[in-house]
Amino acid sequence: MRAAVLHGTRDVRVEDVPDPRITEADDAVVRVVAAAVCGSDLWAYRGLTPLPRPTRAGHEFVGTVEAVGPAVRTLRPGDFVIAPFSVSDNTCRNCRNGVHTSCDRAAHWGVPGPDGRAMDAGQGEAVRVPLADGTLVPTPGPPPPGLIPDLLALCDVMATGHHAARIARVGRGDSVVVVGDGAVGLCAVLAARAAGAERVVVMSRHPARQALAREFGATDIVTARGREGVAEVRRALGGPADSSLECVGTDLSLRQALGTVRPGGHVGCVGLPLGITRFPHRDLFAGNLTVAGGSAPARAYLPELLRRTWDGALAPGRVLDGEFPLHRAADAYAAMDTRRVIKALLRP
Amino acid sequence: MRAAVLHGTRDVRVEDVPDPRITEADDAVVRVVAAAVCGSDLWAYRGLTPLPRPTRAGHEFVGTVEAVGPAVRTLRPGDFVIAPFSVSDNTCRNCRNGVHTSCDRAAHWGVPGPDGRAMDAGQGEAVRVPLADGTLVPTPGPPPPGLIPDLLALCDVMATGHHAARIARVGRGDSVVVVGDGAVGLCAVLAARAAGAERVVVMSRHPARQALAREFGATDIVTARGREGVAEVRRALGGPADSSLECVGTDLSLRQALGTVRPGGHVGCVGLPLGITRFPHRDLFAGNLTVAGGSAPARAYLPELLRRTWDGALAPGRVLDGEFPLHRAADAYAAMDTRRVIKALLRP
Repeated sequence: MRAAVLHGTRDVRVEDVPDPRITEADDAVVRVVAAAVCGSDLWAYRGLTPLPRPTRAGHEFVGTVEAVGPAVRTLRPGDFVIAPFSVSDNTCRNCRNGVHTSCDRAAHWGVPGPDGRAMDAGQGEAVRVPLADGTLVPTPGPPPPGLIPDLLALCDVMATGHHAARIARVGRGDSVVVVGDGAVGLCAVLAARAAGAERVVVMSRHPARQALAREFGATDIVTARGREGVAEVRRALGGPADSSLECVGTDLSLRQALGTVRPGGHVGCVGLPLGITRFPHRDLFAGNLTVAGGSAPARAYLPELLRRTWDGALAPGRVLDGEFPLHRAADAYAAMDTRRVIKALLRP
Repeated sequence: MRAAVLHGTRDVRVEDVPDPRITEADDAVVRVVAAAVCGSDLWAYRGLTPLPRPTRAGHEFVGTVEAVGPAVRTLRPGDFVIAPFSVSDNTCRNCRNGVHTSCDRAAHWGVPGPDGRAMDAGQGEAVRVPLADGTLVPTPGPPPPGLIPDLLALCDVMATGHHAARIARVGRGDSVVVVGDGAVGLCAVLAARAAGAERVVVMSRHPARQALAREFGATDIVTARGREGVAEVRRALGGPADSSLECVGTDLSLRQALGTVRPGGHVGCVGLPLGITRFPHRDLFAGNLTVAGGSAPARAYLPELLRRTWDGALAPGRVLDGEFPLHRAADAYAAMDTRRVIKALLRP
């Protein structure tokens, strides 16, 4: 079969890889219907995160179950499934606490699992899924084709935007700042509005993303950054916000998130920390802030997000604004790298 | 009148100061019945925090209203009142959000207020209290003498322990680590148990404090510190805790708090940061932690804490294990400095 493989900086190739097969009793094999390229894939693509090379790429995919191991109980061949961006057993203590990203048996697509074996990844024709019962979430039935991008967005970016709003305790009537206009930031706008936020300020300089943010419910756009950006947010809101959602992961974005939140406010950090190593504890203490963060336990949120998406109440798929056949994965990466598309969808 | 004045490192003197009088329409003058020495007073006493010298000392006191300005509406001469450790108007947006420590008109005992005038402080015979309606909380009636230490503990340390448990979202059945065995740490034990915690591990090396922690409801004591202490906590609990309460304010104590909490757990930081300038953001992110912190909005908690103390359900006064007449304030400071007493009570 064919799959995208990252060979080096800005070097993604679609090539032949071994067909996946059931090797453990709780495995499933999923035929990929659609996969996505993530902003965090770009970090490896740009050479910013050290990874073994070559490495299989992609941690967001939806598809159809092709085969299941004898121990799989909740899935059958033919089921349409959503794969969250990490593998989890959904039974350990951390999963029971809703922190599936810290599952005792957590594993990540494309990188070696706890057993040392490299995992398949999402940007390919098919995927071996370990801990299939714990990991995969089936849809109520075969989805209409138009719903595929929405379902694909639940694998990571919508779950991550939801996590940001949830850990920042966004509630009815709140004012919220979203730092970042990537797919996660845009999904965070949807999540904040769904949680009842009255004002949602997005920090963005990109006209197309500003437009989508507005359609997703943003009430204000701030283009300035740094101190000036903080001041502009405060002017727009007549003061600091109740919550800030940090959806980038740099020192600058973290400072913007901290600077725009009120005393006693909440900062939700979901941007994978790139270059942030230390956090200004005195700022937290002086403002009586709550700072929460981490990778979204997408598996924990999938049942609820799937229900709302299936019902039509949630439609995050528009963040996937560029579609490419799998064999053009290199073009998809390049389009995201140059910000020509927000997020690319790949069709095997 | 007489009051304690800090002149320099380990140099506290009780000397004549001007009698307080009403200068603003919303002032009250309170005749002090009991005042306390705080762990944070020791920092200035030890020369660790730069302060203008000489400076009036003490931010915890209870007493009787002697006079009120013409605009005061909720207090009358003769009322017994509790003074939280900061002044607030109880009406601004931050106060309405429950963050009285960030009141738009916040001021602190012993240091110059927003108007530049030095404020009176608690360790003296009487105190001018600005924003008296917003700041002071009257008791339902004259308290029995035995209740005075309990009420005095509400000014700061019990409110602070309560804040730690609250911002760390301690709930029924939780396991909780308390880092620190000072008066705040001991009050945090009371608060964690009152919030329903099932296991409360206290990190302490001091036998008398360990004993009081046990009486306050601690289920486990860990004497080791650093990595060894973290490992010992995890052994005692069979894993990490749901929440950690950081009641010291050093880098070591913060690392202990972070190291003992489970993925998705909560860290409540109430130790005034001494030497902590930066926080390990990657640890937060990797564990999906929530870290909250700051000075306790004692004024926000006082009505509830007072009710429970008045009813006998809460008795934090035993942290005040040393009593001194005001003229021996220097001895009180020295006793705390050498850890002969946990917390000193001064009687004018």
